Amino acid sequence: MAAATMTTSAATGGLDRQAIERIVREVVAAQGSQQPQAGQGAVGSRPEDLVVSISARHVHLCDKDVETLFGAGHTLTPMKDLYQDGFFAAEETVMILGPRRRTLPTVRVLGPTRSFSQVELAFTDSISLGLDIPIRHSGKIEGTPGCVLVGPRGVVELNEGVIRAARHVHMNLSCCEAYGVENGDMMKLRVEAAGNTVVFEDLLVRADETSKLEVHIDTDEGNACNLDQATHVELLKQADDECACSR
Amino acid sequence: MAAATMTTSAATGGLDRQAIERIVREVVAAQGSQQPQAGQGAVGSRPEDLVVSISARHVHLCDKDVETLFGAGHTLTPMKDLYQDGFFAAEETVMILGPRRRTLPTVRVLGPTRSFSQVELAFTDSISLGLDIPIRHSGKIEGTPGCVLVGPRGVVELNEGVIRAARHVHMNLSCCEAYGVENGDMMKLRVEAAGNTVVFEDLLVRADETSKLEVHIDTDEGNACNLDQATHVELLKQADDECACSR
Repeated sequence: MAAATMTTSAATGGLDRQAIERIVREVVAAQGSQQPQAGQGAVGSRPEDLVVSISARHVHLCDKDVETLFGAGHTLTPMKDLYQDGFFAAEETVMILGPRRRTLPTVRVLGPTRSFSQVELAFTDSISLGLDIPIRHSGKIEGTPGCVLVGPRGVVELNEGVIRAARHVHMNLSCCEAYGVENGDMMKLRVEAAGNTVVFEDLLVRADETSKLEVHIDTDEGNACNLDQATHVELLKQADDECACSR
Repeated sequence: MAAATMTTSAATGGLDRQAIERIVREVVAAQGSQQPQAGQGAVGSRPEDLVVSISARHVHLCDKDVETLFGAGHTLTPMKDLYQDGFFAAEETVMILGPRRRTLPTVRVLGPTRSFSQVELAFTDSISLGLDIPIRHSGKIEGTPGCVLVGPRGVVELNEGVIRAARHVHMNLSCCEAYGVENGDMMKLRVEAAGNTVVFEDLLVRADETSKLEVHIDTDEGNACNLDQATHVELLKQADDECACSR
C-alpha cells in the first residue's frame, strides 16, 4: 500500500463539502515506500516522488473580477498552500450560476490571480449546473461556455472560461530527463487498485525549472479510479505499452 | 467517430434526472462502422458489435421488498427494456435514505426481481449520500453497508447491499471464443476519445449461452472517460499490452 495523505487542493461548500474534501487528497506513490533522501534532489524532482492530486471544482480570478466580487481594493486571502510552491486555496468562495438558474453555491477560489478568470469543473459538476463543457488545457478557453459568478459584493458575467481541465502532470526539467519526456509530451498515469485499475492516457507534461512532480486529475477521474484505495501509481511514456515486450 | 445512440438503462429523478439520462447511453463501437450482417450471428455476438452502457444508480428488489414498498400484491411495471433480453427499467422508483438523513430522492428500480435487494451507486452518489461503499460484483454483498429504502406504501431497511458495481462485460460463449477468454476472466476496456483516452482494467467477463456483448460501467467511469465523445471502444485481454510488440 502506498503511503497516502489527504490534502485539500480546492474545496467546495454546501452539503458536499466534507465529502468532497475527503476525496481531495494526494496519493504518494513512493514506489516501494522510498522517501526522498538528502542529496538526491529536491522533493518532487524524481519519479519515485510522484504525487497524484485530485482537483475539486474551483475558480481562477483576475484582479478586476476579485474586486467586483469581493469589493474595491480586495485581494485574495490565502487559506491553504497547494503542493506547487506559490499557489494557494483562498478563503474566498463564489457561487456559480448556470443556465436554467442552477447553481453551485460555494466554489473555492485558487490563487494567485491570473490575467483572466477561468472556472474548472468536473463533468458531474457541469451536468448538475446544466452546462456542456469541453475538455481544455488551462488557459485555452476560446469558444467555451460562460457562466455568472456571484460574490458577496458583486456579480461577474463570464462570456467564456468554463472548462473541464485536461489532466496533466507538473514536473521540473530534471524529472523530464528521468522520464525521457519534454514539455508538451503526453504520458500515461496508471492507478493500480485491487480490482479497479485504470490507465489515464493523454496526460500532458507541463514542465519548467521549478515545478514539483505532481499529477492533476479531477474528481470524476479520482472517483472512477478510486484513488484513495490505490496501491500504486505510475507514470508511463505514452508509447510505453508498445515496447512492453522488452521487459 | 463511432455510431453512438443514447438509451436509458436506469434513470434517476430530481433535478439531475434529465442530465443523468443524457449520460446514460450506449456507444456502439462498430469498429469501422461495420453493422451486423445476416448470417454472421445474432446482434451482440461478435467483437465488432461491442456496446458500452453506463449504468446510472439503481436498485434491484426482491418480491417481498416490492410488496413492502409499493403495496401487497404489487409487481414491477416494465417501463423500458434494457439491452440484455428480459431485463427492464421499471416504472417504480424509491428514495434512498442514508446516514445523517441524506437522501437520493428518486432511484430507478430495475427488473425482474431478485432473491435479495441490492443498491448500485457510483462513488459520487455514495459520497452525496454519506456512505462508504466497496466495489463489488453483483450479488457479493456480504459486509457491505445498508440503507433505508422508502416507497409510496412502506419502508425497507437493508442491513447490507449497497455497492459500487464492479465493471464487467456480458457476452455469450461464441463471443468468448472470438476474444479467447472464459467466464470469470478479466479484460480491459479502452475508450478512445480525443485527448482523453482511458483504459479500464479489471473488467470481469460474465459469459453465458445467451447474453449480448455489452460492457457495463458506472456514471463516474462514464464521466471520467467522456464516453459520449468516444471515437472508438475496444475490448482487450488483460495481458494484451504485454505482447503489443507483435503488432
